[in-house]
Amino acid sequence: MNIRISRNVAAMQAYTPGEQPQDRDIIKLNTNENPYPPSPRVAEALAGFDASRLRLYPEPRNIVLRRRLAEIHGCTPEQVFVGNGSDEVLALATRAYVENDGSIGYFEPSYSLYPVLAEIRGVAPQPVELGPEFSWRMPVDVRASLFLLTCPNAPTGRQYDRATVADFCRGFDGVVLIDEAYADFAPDSFMDLSLAPGNANTLVSRTFSKSFSLAGLRLGYVIGPAPLIEAMQKIKDSYNLDMLTQTVALAALSDLDSMRANVRRIVASRRRLADALRTRGWSVLPSATNFLFAAPPDGNGQAVFDHLRAKKIYVRYFPGPRTGAYLRITIGTESQIDALLAAL
Amino acid sequence: MNIRISRNVAAMQAYTPGEQPQDRDIIKLNTNENPYPPSPRVAEALAGFDASRLRLYPEPRNIVLRRRLAEIHGCTPEQVFVGNGSDEVLALATRAYVENDGSIGYFEPSYSLYPVLAEIRGVAPQPVELGPEFSWRMPVDVRASLFLLTCPNAPTGRQYDRATVADFCRGFDGVVLIDEAYADFAPDSFMDLSLAPGNANTLVSRTFSKSFSLAGLRLGYVIGPAPLIEAMQKIKDSYNLDMLTQTVALAALSDLDSMRANVRRIVASRRRLADALRTRGWSVLPSATNFLFAAPPDGNGQAVFDHLRAKKIYVRYFPGPRTGAYLRITIGTESQIDALLAAL
Repeated sequence: MNIRISRNVAAMQAYTPGEQPQDRDIIKLNTNENPYPPSPRVAEALAGFDASRLRLYPEPRNIVLRRRLAEIHGCTPEQVFVGNGSDEVLALATRAYVENDGSIGYFEPSYSLYPVLAEIRGVAPQPVELGPEFSWRMPVDVRASLFLLTCPNAPTGRQYDRATVADFCRGFDGVVLIDEAYADFAPDSFMDLSLAPGNANTLVSRTFSKSFSLAGLRLGYVIGPAPLIEAMQKIKDSYNLDMLTQTVALAALSDLDSMRANVRRIVASRRRLADALRTRGWSVLPSATNFLFAAPPDGNGQAVFDHLRAKKIYVRYFPGPRTGAYLRITIGTESQIDALLAAL
Repeated sequence: MNIRISRNVAAMQAYTPGEQPQDRDIIKLNTNENPYPPSPRVAEALAGFDASRLRLYPEPRNIVLRRRLAEIHGCTPEQVFVGNGSDEVLALATRAYVENDGSIGYFEPSYSLYPVLAEIRGVAPQPVELGPEFSWRMPVDVRASLFLLTCPNAPTGRQYDRATVADFCRGFDGVVLIDEAYADFAPDSFMDLSLAPGNANTLVSRTFSKSFSLAGLRLGYVIGPAPLIEAMQKIKDSYNLDMLTQTVALAALSDLDSMRANVRRIVASRRRLADALRTRGWSVLPSATNFLFAAPPDGNGQAVFDHLRAKKIYVRYFPGPRTGAYLRITIGTESQIDALLAAL
């Protein structure tokens, strides 16, 4: 260990993202990517982009994009922050709202990046164990500077009850960041909690990585009270979004219909895959996302993971006493689902 | 003030980047952008990019780009970190190498972002006043967890003496990050200090924003000892570089000749502008960058700044007892320089 590296960084393990294999033959159902391409407007925007513009810095406050998102969500640009993926939004939240002696709460299991973010920030992680079948169970005395709440949850796919979430946000003595990465696949969204009059502590984030088919672009955003948003603006990198990202994101937002059509196809496929797995004796949690969290009849997630991998079908497996029985399976195209079912 | 915002963030002022006016009539010599377009390979790479690939996550460790940069600089990919602009590199350095009770050193004046980075990190800034005419003057007892050293310096344009810098790095009890944003315009580079056998504490960063004409892309990188690089890899956002950025950067790196030709033109124009200003009685510091730091005969930088601005020529002015006499003027095209000289 080099003594010049700060203690928490030297001691920590990096987050392990899902594999990004280069082999095109692999059926990739492991990182919740959208199996369908983004809006044709994206390709048009890239084809029409004048590369000589890249010699200039991008607009540093991302104001055009924030205006467009504000229009979509019925708020002001001062209530919108856009980041280099939701990753940047989450990382900034750990610095904007958490003191050095603070803590970061999250459900266990939820997004496995959260404890890593607490370690990077050098503050205490406060995991809260979910209830039976990964249902909501929050201790009345929960305390944290920041609570990261994935709604619908990943990797379980479950959505929580609206009134329960609203009550929690209202009563929580810290900032709540509701991570709505999968909200477009869910029957309801909690975005309105971030915009409720009198709200001072609740943010809701979204990403272009799932419903918009733009994981490769890196764009996330968060909506909430202007003072919380302004704190993120102050500490972000000066030019956090490059010019191409701003251009492509605006193109995608000019065609919400394409995104919604892809979402409808995925939701239909999700139903089909869930039914097929249940018919085969699998236990499938209700999903409000673009993936299923499902356990084979013998509860041996690892064995099925290995079996599928040998057949070049990648899904995600999270070892552990509660998650080890399950696989997280991204909803692919109809033919990918056929291949998956044939392989099982 | 909202009590949920951390104290240092609530108290600080954000960095103010140079203006990015949208008016195309403005002669923009204020943010050290390259006046010439990037390599034609950049436009080709964008035109040939298959937008449907964006549905997938980018390769998270940026390995192809790191291999190419390692090849160029004669090191291993484990000695290369690539970031979302040098901004990300600098911000990560403040967390990877600085404890909560640590400090960040830098020359005054140098890059005005450095004290803001210390404030964001919530640690003590340690400014070190430069000597006469902004020459090197380092106290023998200087202490900091991290020293950010711009070589050549900005906004002064001066390069420091190689042996002096090497001695400083060797003797410094902390990490030194040599920020070589402008090195391609300088007669020499200190990159070899980051790769010297036995070096454990010196990093050298570069950017695509200046010589490569790609400020709009956001790409910076840093080279140095593998343990220091690995610390940055551990705490970066999982997918810090989007797919388009990786693709465009590789295209630019496939044609170093274009970059070098642009650099030669800018260096020739720099000489011409410096001579013309000196003829008019200006005091012009020697420049190893793509800008001049120059004071009008009456030492009233503000007055000339205002005069030029009224004529739609934007340069950069840094108020202050030492810098207030000067303007920082980016080297533009020959015709932009003609317009500037005509306006003076």
